Amino acid sequence: MKAAIIFGSQSDKPIMKKAADVLREFGVDFSSRVVSAHRCPELLESVIAELTAGGTEVIIAGAGLAAHLPGVIASKTTIPVIGVPIASGALSGLDALFSIVQMPRPVPVAAVGTDNAANAAYLAVEILGLKYPELGEKLKQARAKLKEEAAKDSYAEL
Amino acid sequence: MKAAIIFGSQSDKPIMKKAADVLREFGVDFSSRVVSAHRCPELLESVIAELTAGGTEVIIAGAGLAAHLPGVIASKTTIPVIGVPIASGALSGLDALFSIVQMPRPVPVAAVGTDNAANAAYLAVEILGLKYPELGEKLKQARAKLKEEAAKDSYAEL
Amino acid sequence: MKAAIIFGSQSDKPIMKKAADVLREFGVDFSSRVVSAHRCPELLESVIAELTAGGTEVIIAGAGLAAHLPGVIASKTTIPVIGVPIASGALSGLDALFSIVQMPRPVPVAAVGTDNAANAAYLAVEILGLKYPELGEKLKQARAKLKEEAAKDSYAEL
Amino acid sequence: MKAAIIFGSQSDKPIMKKAADVLREFGVDFSSRVVSAHRCPELLESVIAELTAGGTEVIIAGAGLAAHLPGVIASKTTIPVIGVPIASGALSGLDALFSIVQMPRPVPVAAVGTDNAANAAYLAVEILGLKYPELGEKLKQARAKLKEEAAKDSYAEL
Amino acid sequence: MKAAIIFGSQSDKPIMKKAADVLREFGVDFSSRVVSAHRCPELLESVIAELTAGGTEVIIAGAGLAAHLPGVIASKTTIPVIGVPIASGALSGLDALFSIVQMPRPVPVAAVGTDNAANAAYLAVEILGLKYPELGEKLKQARAKLKEEAAKDSYAEL
Amino acid sequence: MKAAIIFGSQSDKPIMKKAADVLREFGVDFSSRVVSAHRCPELLESVIAELTAGGTEVIIAGAGLAAHLPGVIASKTTIPVIGVPIASGALSGLDALFSIVQMPRPVPVAAVGTDNAANAAYLAVEILGLKYPELGEKLKQARAKLKEEAAKDSYAEL
Amino acid sequence: MKAAIIFGSQSDKPIMKKAADVLREFGVDFSSRVVSAHRCPELLESVIAELTAGGTEVIIAGAGLAAHLPGVIASKTTIPVIGVPIASGALSGLDALFSIVQMPRPVPVAAVGTDNAANAAYLAVEILGLKYPELGEKLKQARAKLKEEAAKDSYAEL
Amino acid sequence: MKAAIIFGSQSDKPIMKKAADVLREFGVDFSSRVVSAHRCPELLESVIAELTAGGTEVIIAGAGLAAHLPGVIASKTTIPVIGVPIASGALSGLDALFSIVQMPRPVPVAAVGTDNAANAAYLAVEILGLKYPELGEKLKQARAKLKEEAAKDSYAEL
Repeated sequence: MKAAIIFGSQSDKPIMKKAADVLREFGVDFSSRVVSAHRCPELLESVIAELTAGGTEVIIAGAGLAAHLPGVIASKTTIPVIGVPIASGALSGLDALFSIVQMPRPVPVAAVGTDNAANAAYLAVEILGLKYPELGEKLKQARAKLKEEAAKDSYAEL
Repeated sequence: MKAAIIFGSQSDKPIMKKAADVLREFGVDFSSRVVSAHRCPELLESVIAELTAGGTEVIIAGAGLAAHLPGVIASKTTIPVIGVPIASGALSGLDALFSIVQMPRPVPVAAVGTDNAANAAYLAVEILGLKYPELGEKLKQARAKLKEEAAKDSYAEL
Repeated sequence: MKAAIIFGSQSDKPIMKKAADVLREFGVDFSSRVVSAHRCPELLESVIAELTAGGTEVIIAGAGLAAHLPGVIASKTTIPVIGVPIASGALSGLDALFSIVQMPRPVPVAAVGTDNAANAAYLAVEILGLKYPELGEKLKQARAKLKEEAAKDSYAEL
Repeated sequence: MKAAIIFGSQSDKPIMKKAADVLREFGVDFSSRVVSAHRCPELLESVIAELTAGGTEVIIAGAGLAAHLPGVIASKTTIPVIGVPIASGALSGLDALFSIVQMPRPVPVAAVGTDNAANAAYLAVEILGLKYPELGEKLKQARAKLKEEAAKDSYAEL
Repeated sequence: MKAAIIFGSQSDKPIMKKAADVLREFGVDFSSRVVSAHRCPELLESVIAELTAGGTEVIIAGAGLAAHLPGVIASKTTIPVIGVPIASGALSGLDALFSIVQMPRPVPVAAVGTDNAANAAYLAVEILGLKYPELGEKLKQARAKLKEEAAKDSYAEL
Repeated sequence: MKAAIIFGSQSDKPIMKKAADVLREFGVDFSSRVVSAHRCPELLESVIAELTAGGTEVIIAGAGLAAHLPGVIASKTTIPVIGVPIASGALSGLDALFSIVQMPRPVPVAAVGTDNAANAAYLAVEILGLKYPELGEKLKQARAKLKEEAAKDSYAEL
Repeated sequence: MKAAIIFGSQSDKPIMKKAADVLREFGVDFSSRVVSAHRCPELLESVIAELTAGGTEVIIAGAGLAAHLPGVIASKTTIPVIGVPIASGALSGLDALFSIVQMPRPVPVAAVGTDNAANAAYLAVEILGLKYPELGEKLKQARAKLKEEAAKDSYAEL
Repeated sequence: MKAAIIFGSQSDKPIMKKAADVLREFGVDFSSRVVSAHRCPELLESVIAELTAGGTEVIIAGAGLAAHLPGVIASKTTIPVIGVPIASGALSGLDALFSIVQMPRPVPVAAVGTDNAANAAYLAVEILGLKYPELGEKLKQARAKLKEEAAKDSYAEL
C-alpha cells in the first residue's frame, strides 16, 4: 500500500509533516513532493503520472491561498485525492477551504479541516484500510486505544 | 462492494438522490436511510452498527444546518465517511460546511462541496475502486468518456 | 441543585474554568469532565447517562472546530444544554458558533458568545434560579451590585 | 408556569408563531407582544417590568437586523432570555445572530438558530421542565415519541 | 457646542481616546462616560437624560461584541449618535459592526469603521460644524492643511 | 436647510426613494442626482462643488458593489456625508457596506444599514435638527408619535 | 489583436456573453471555448497551446465554484489572464472570487467582480489598447461618450 | 515602457516594495507616489494626469480598508489599473478586496490577492510584455527558470 503527500510550498512543510507522522505511525509507505500547481504545472503532471504508474493509491495534497493543487491532481487521476486547506495570508484559510472543497461534478476532492493534515492522513488510512484488512484492523485498535486513553484523561479539575 | 447513504431529513432527499444516481450508474450496491443525529441518536447508532456489521465499506452522509451527522457517524466507525453539506436556512450551507469539514483529529470526515452529493458518490466510487479493480477501471473509462464528450461540447457561440 | 461542565479537549480548560468560577461564586455544585464527542462517543453517552441519573439539571458544554459536543449531548437528554463556541484554529470560532447554534428542531442548544464560558455559567444560574428561589435572589443581588459598581466605575478620563 | 414571546416587528410574526405553537403543544401558558427595542424602549421597559412582576419565568425574544431586543431584555431581568435571530434584509440573519449571541459578561442571552423560533420554545420547555416535573416528563415523552416516529420514517427510497 | 463620548467597557479606553484627541484638537467641549448598555441600563438612561438635558448635541458611542450601546442610546434621543464598532474577541469586530450599523427604521446610528474612533470624532465635528460656522471653518482649514502635508509626504522611495 | 441625495445608478432609485420620502415628510428641501463615482467622476466633482456652493448641508449617497460614491464625496467636502450600502450582485451588499464604512482617518462617512435609505434620511434630519430647532422639534414629535403607535400596535395574537 | 474567452461550463454562457458583446463593440477579434479545468485538463492544455501559438494576446476566463480555470491557464502562459468569478451554488460566488484572486506569486490572475464579464472585456480592451493605439483611442472615446451620457442621465426624480 | 506604483499610506510601503522589486528585476521603469484617494483627491487627480501625460502605461495601486484608490484612478484613465488589497485593521483585507474587485461596468480594476503586490507587478509585466516583445521574452525565460528551480526544490523530507 502506498500513499503520496504533495504540497504547494516549502512553507507548508510543518503542517504537512503531521500527515507524514500519522502515515508512519500506521506503517503506510509514502512519497512526498513539493510541487506548486501554478509555478510548475508540467512537473506536477509528470509527478502525478509517476505516482499513479508507481501504484500510489491515495494522494494527500496541501495548499494555501487559491489552493488549486488538490483539484488539479484530482483532474488527472481517479484515485482518491484528499485536500488540506492551509491557512496562510490574510483570509485565514477560508480561501483555501473554498478552493479545495467546492470542486465541480464529477471530480471530487475529499476536504479535511484547515491545517488538519493529520486528519488527512487518518482519512487516507481509513481508505487504504478497506483494501488492506490488517491496516483497517490497526486503525480500529488505534481508535479503541484512543477511547481508553480519552476515558483516563477525562477528569478535569476546573 | 457496498455503500450507504444516510441523511438527516426527508427534505434532503432531492439533493441526496444525486448520490444514489451516481452509485447506481457505477453498479455500486447501497442502502439508504433517513436518520437524524439529533432527533434519533440511538437509531443512528444501531444503523451504523448494522451497516458496519453488514459489510458497508463507505458511508455518504448529508446534512444541513449544524450538520453533525457525518461527524457522529465517523466517531462510531473507522470506515471512510463522506460528508455532504446541504444548504438550508439563512446561512446558505456555510454552517453545514464548517460543521462537517472542521472535524478534530483523529476522526476525519471527507467533505465535498455544498449540495454536491454527486461528488460524494464519485469519491465513494474512487475509494471503492482501490479495492475493486473492475470498479476502478469503470471509473477510468467514465472519466475518459467525459473528456471526449467535453471536447465535443467545447465549442461556444457567444 | 447541580450543574455539569463538559468540554471536548484539555486545551479548552482555561476558557471553561471561567464557567467554573462563576458557578462557584453562586454556590452551584457542579461536576466537570473532558469528553470529546468524536474521540470517545461511548464515554460521552455513559457520562450523560450518569449525569442525568445523578440529578444534573443543566449542562454547560464547550467545544471548538466542528463543535458537535453540545448538540450530541442535547440529543441524549431533555435538560437544558448550554453551548460555548471556543475559538481555535483558522476560522476564529465561527465554525464552532455555527455548529453549536444551528441545531435542528426540536433539539435546541442554548448558545452563548465565542469563548464566553462565564456567560454560559450565568445563564445556567438564571435557569437554576427559577427552581431554586434563593439562587434567583442571589443572582438579583449580584446584578444589583454590578450596577452599583458600574455606576462608580463609569467615569472615564480620556 | 409562564412564558412570554416578544418580537421586534409585526413582520416577524410568522416566524415567532412557531414558538407559540410549541408552547401550546406543551400546555405552557404564555403572553406575546410586539415591542421594538429601538422604536419604543420605554414600552419595552414597562412590558418587562409587567412580565417579571406577573411571574413570567422565561422570555423568548425574536429580532432581525441589529437585533438588540433579546439583549436589552436580558439587561433588565435575571430570568432566562432566549434569542431568535431572524433573517431579514441583505445580511441573511448573520447580523441578528451576532447581535444576539455575542452578549458581554455577565448578561447572557441563550441564542438558538436563525429563524428557529420552534427551538427557542423547546428550550423554554426544557428550562421550565426543571421546575415543573410534569412538564419535564411531557418533554421526555415527546422526545421518546419523536424517536419512534423518526425510526418509522427512516426508510428512504432514493 | 457639546459632544459626549460613551463606551461600554474600560478596556475600550485606548480606542476611544482617539476620539477625545480629535475633539480636543478642534476645541469641542465633551464629556465622557463608561456605561455598559447591558450591565447598567438604568445608569445609561440617566446618563442619556442628563446629557440631552445638558445640551449635548452629538454622542459618540463605542462598543464591541454585541455592541448594543449606540443603538440603545439612539432609541432614547433624537440627537445624532455615532457608533464605533470595537474589534474584541474572536469575530474581529464584524459582530460589533453589524450590531451598530443594521439599525431598524427610523432609529439610525451613524457607523464609522471598526476601531476608528478618530473618524467618529471627525464626523461629530462635521455635524457640529453645520451649526457652528467657526468650527466648520476650522475643519475646512484642517482639511486644506492635510492636503498640503499629504502632497509633501507623497514621495515614496520603494 | 438643504440636503442632497446622490446615487450611483438608476437601478438604485427604488431604494433611494425611501430617503426622499422621509425628507419630504419632514419638510427638508433636497436635490437629487444620479452620478456614478466611476463612470463620470468629473461630473461628480462639479455636482459636489455646486451643492456645497449652493448651501447643501448634508449629503445622502447610496451605492452598491465597490460603492465608492459616499467616500469620494466625503473626500471633496467637509459637510457630513451619509452612506447607504445597496445590496446588488452576488455579495449581498457586504461589499458596499465595507466600502462605505471602512473609510480612513480623517475622512469619515456615516454608514447606515444595507438598503436602509430611510434611516439615512432620519439621520440627516437629526443632523439638520441641531441647527434648525423647529426641525429637531418635529423629529421629537415624530418619535413620540411613533412610540404611541408602537404601543397601540404592540399586541400580537400568535 | 486577438483575445480568447474560455469558461468552465455551458451554464456560464449567459454571463460570459457579456464579455463577447463588449469585445465585439470594440472590434476585438476573439475565439471562445467551453473547457473545464477539471473535467478535461488535457483539452485545456491543448487549447491554451493553440491559443498562444495562434497569437492570442489576452485570455478572459470565467468559472464558478472552486474556479481553478483562470489560474490553471495562467500557470501555462505568460500572457495576461483575466478571471471572472461566477456566482453559482450556495456560496454566492465568494468561493470563485477567492479561488481566482488569491493566486500565489508569481502567477497572477487579474480578477474582476463576481459575474462581471463585461468588466473583464473592458480590462482586456485596456490591455490591448496599450499595444494597439487605435483601440486605446476608441476606448477613450467610449469613456468620453459614457461621461456625456451619464451627465444627461444624471437627473433623478425621487 | 513605464509603470507607476501608487499607494494610499506610508504604512503600505513594505507591502508595495515587493512590486517595485519585481519591476526592477524585469527592468521596467516606474515612478512611485503615496497619495490617498480620500485625504488628497486633488493631488491624486494631478498625479494621474501627470502619469498619463508622461506615458505611463500601467498603474499598480495598493490600498487598505475602504481601498478606493485603484477604482478612483481607474475612473480617470483608460490604461490598465491593477489593485492590491492591503490587509490592515480588523477585517483582514476582506474590506479592501471587495472595494477593489467589485468595480461597476465599464470601469474595471484588475485585482490581485491580498497583500500580493509582487503578483501585481508580474501582471504589469505580462501586460507590458504584449507591447514590448523583449519584456515578454524575459518573462517567459523567468517562468522557465522558475520551473527548473521548482523542479530542483521539489524534494521534501517529511
